[in-house]
Amino acid sequence: MSPYKAVETEDKSSDVVWHLASVSHEERVKSHGHRPAVLWFTGLSGSGKSTVANAVDKMLHDLGCKTYLLDGDNVRHGLNGDLGFSDQDRVENIRRIGEVSKLFADAGLLVSTAFISPFTVDRELVRGQLQAGQFIEVFIDTPVEICEQRDPKGLYKKARAGEIKNFTGIDSAYELPLQPEVHVKTAEHSIEACAKQVVDYLKSHGYLKAVSS
Amino acid sequence: MSPYKAVETEDKSSDVVWHLASVSHEERVKSHGHRPAVLWFTGLSGSGKSTVANAVDKMLHDLGCKTYLLDGDNVRHGLNGDLGFSDQDRVENIRRIGEVSKLFADAGLLVSTAFISPFTVDRELVRGQLQAGQFIEVFIDTPVEICEQRDPKGLYKKARAGEIKNFTGIDSAYELPLQPEVHVKTAEHSIEACAKQVVDYLKSHGYLKAVSS
Repeated sequence: MSPYKAVETEDKSSDVVWHLASVSHEERVKSHGHRPAVLWFTGLSGSGKSTVANAVDKMLHDLGCKTYLLDGDNVRHGLNGDLGFSDQDRVENIRRIGEVSKLFADAGLLVSTAFISPFTVDRELVRGQLQAGQFIEVFIDTPVEICEQRDPKGLYKKARAGEIKNFTGIDSAYELPLQPEVHVKTAEHSIEACAKQVVDYLKSHGYLKAVSS
Repeated sequence: MSPYKAVETEDKSSDVVWHLASVSHEERVKSHGHRPAVLWFTGLSGSGKSTVANAVDKMLHDLGCKTYLLDGDNVRHGLNGDLGFSDQDRVENIRRIGEVSKLFADAGLLVSTAFISPFTVDRELVRGQLQAGQFIEVFIDTPVEICEQRDPKGLYKKARAGEIKNFTGIDSAYELPLQPEVHVKTAEHSIEACAKQVVDYLKSHGYLKAVSS
């Protein structure tokens, strides 16, 4: 929106050009003391996305970063409460999460997202909408057999029983990230080690340079 | 999501319960040093919503608050780029903005939104989704004659010429806020005074108490 002139009134103080004072992205970033980014966690159901993302979010918060976490708990029943599980709705689900994470990055935060996001084209769409270096794909690489053993929500059992259709890893594809910024193997390392791997990536790539760490 | 046990592997360190470490809303709020809220600016096109909202956002930022601003520039072509101007799409537009502002408040920020949002039911829907005291309705009350004189985007001219249909204030209703938390009259006061009125409301109601001001 362009600045515009206020109309003349009895109050002379409004008889001036209305400057559109606004906070720039750079000023927002500076106020937080670290670089903003979207940490896009992707992986199968039960892979540990949400657990690792929460642990990373906590580590970053404890380091003094301004963070937020988008996951099924705060998105699926709110912003995306009108969406189902058709192909079209699943694409729209990821599109909106991408747009919201972009807004959080614009606000200067380190925002984590934890959604299966099985298709490369959807993830790359989000990457393409962000500034260079603001999209960090974190592949939570856990073998489907182990995810199914964990089955924290009982979803694999339902999928095997045919109660859930198009379940990623069972009868719907998960497209492997080709060049994820961080490749995490939860079956081989502790949750703390997995989270630290992500935080170490941020440290070594200069995202946290102004934060005491 | 419930915490769940990691499978046993060669690496003994993962053979533990995976605690779901997470940052609570209270911890996020504490890290920002002020209370979170949604400043919901509502008013006619040309009323000065965006200008006042930007000025408020800048004042709060300069006071050390963590802020963000949602307006047509960053929402209409992104998150809500799939929406048109039908009644249904206008409702969905406001619903999504409400949901996103709720996420920002959950993150602990002072988020401003600047959209006409002409219907009481839509605004009250957003209010109802937020915690008590987190929705602050800011009515930018500028007579339609003055908005039309300003006409910063030339929209009134197009509406009068019949090029835009269902234009709020011309051939579509604007429902006045009945009990807005802040009632701002841009035709009577300078932009700085209008912005200060909103910031003073926040100060006097304890939103900024931990911020140096």
